[in-house]
Amino acid sequence: MKKIGYLGPKGTFSYEAVLKYIKDKPEYTGCDYNSIAELILAVDRNELDEAIVPIENSLEGAINVTLDVLAFEVDLKIKDEVVIDICANLMVKKGTLPENIRCILSHPQPLGQCRKFISSNYPNVDVKSVYSTAGAAETVAEGTGDLAAIGSSSVAGVYGLDIIASNIQDGYNNRTRFVVISKNDGPNVGCNKTSIVFSTEDKPGSLYRVLDIFNLWDVNMVRIESRPAKNQLGNYIFFIDIEGHYDDPELKDALTMIKRKTSFYKLLGSYPRYQE
Amino acid sequence: MKKIGYLGPKGTFSYEAVLKYIKDKPEYTGCDYNSIAELILAVDRNELDEAIVPIENSLEGAINVTLDVLAFEVDLKIKDEVVIDICANLMVKKGTLPENIRCILSHPQPLGQCRKFISSNYPNVDVKSVYSTAGAAETVAEGTGDLAAIGSSSVAGVYGLDIIASNIQDGYNNRTRFVVISKNDGPNVGCNKTSIVFSTEDKPGSLYRVLDIFNLWDVNMVRIESRPAKNQLGNYIFFIDIEGHYDDPELKDALTMIKRKTSFYKLLGSYPRYQE
Repeated sequence: MKKIGYLGPKGTFSYEAVLKYIKDKPEYTGCDYNSIAELILAVDRNELDEAIVPIENSLEGAINVTLDVLAFEVDLKIKDEVVIDICANLMVKKGTLPENIRCILSHPQPLGQCRKFISSNYPNVDVKSVYSTAGAAETVAEGTGDLAAIGSSSVAGVYGLDIIASNIQDGYNNRTRFVVISKNDGPNVGCNKTSIVFSTEDKPGSLYRVLDIFNLWDVNMVRIESRPAKNQLGNYIFFIDIEGHYDDPELKDALTMIKRKTSFYKLLGSYPRYQE
Repeated sequence: MKKIGYLGPKGTFSYEAVLKYIKDKPEYTGCDYNSIAELILAVDRNELDEAIVPIENSLEGAINVTLDVLAFEVDLKIKDEVVIDICANLMVKKGTLPENIRCILSHPQPLGQCRKFISSNYPNVDVKSVYSTAGAAETVAEGTGDLAAIGSSSVAGVYGLDIIASNIQDGYNNRTRFVVISKNDGPNVGCNKTSIVFSTEDKPGSLYRVLDIFNLWDVNMVRIESRPAKNQLGNYIFFIDIEGHYDDPELKDALTMIKRKTSFYKLLGSYPRYQE
């Protein structure tokens, strides 16, 4: 069996992502961990074969801890990616009526995404941030019938809660992209993506000169994310996703040039691009 | 009097930033608000003349809510910037001995920045996240003498706490940059910065072509930050800081060209560059 870690407990959005990823892979078994950093470090010390971690949400943006651990703390690869729809539900203990709800609990991200739903439907209800959507559901399951939680439908199943309203997020296209972290990256399939992280010399135009290399070699950049270099305010590292596999001759040449033009450079891996 | 809002209550790092900003400006009076979004919206509806809000920390990166509200919800300008050192202190109620501490409270950011200090000095103490450093200090002041808070030295003063260890962050250069939001931007002084936000057309190389304009006009970009466009996963808006004032003829021409090459464009203002 291969062990793949996810941010637990069962029922979180990370749990939905791991189910989607291992659906046709019977050789995998899922293990739940408490934090993203722990998950990635567990792969590094061979406690896990792989870990699935969120890297980007369509409303809230980058998941900083994922980027920072990959850049600064380990030397691991991205071998695959999975995108899931974040569908938020309002759930209660069996028997609770909507008018009995006194407090709504969830993780700050889903609470933020359902702000309009809450203020128009439950204007006088307390809203409380907790550590995870699964923790919120557990509190509701153990409560006295005046609580509600916001989370995935799988968390409702795990804690035996009733869903009384579904798809309650504020009308946005709410999706999260997860990456699968491993000691080795992905195979070269038809449609690939490659992720790198680097820092440039601290002089004018140095980021431009790196992007110029992509332009010269006709490489299409699909994402750029900056994070603090953590040594000094105003110094950054850049995470860039490009189309293609580093085995492709053109991309290989471009990356060799980029490595030469940057002060810090790490290939995070090539992997199959997610397709619906 | 001019009213300037900050993220309260008294004693937060935002309070330190507003004190630094209004030090030689006797015409200003500070008003505390509960959230960054409320602060910026209060300027928009003329309840405040100005608001000072954090935009970037040297360890934790961009303050997303500040960027998102400026891009999507208002049409305000940045008129100045202030940088403060984030010096974290461990503080207790008068009389509490270090060996009596059972629980350490703070906002998640300072707790993260002091992780090594806590694990080496207080390995068996509970660590609890609360909404603000000032809230943590208040709880400690009202507690029974077995609590400690982490926060600025001004929060210790406000709540009458004793600092028992100072500068406890994990050996990094920890600074936060704040911007002053107003209906109008700053004067053209010798050394300026200009901030813009834009989105590019969704086709290969479109970000490169914008940066190419800066290169052609010899404009130095000092920061680029991407945020989700919030319509679809994989679409972004870009916040860019460049050197110079939009009144400078060269920069004016470059910005005119950028406006033409982007699908969404907003000038967030020119303002004096912070200097020590």
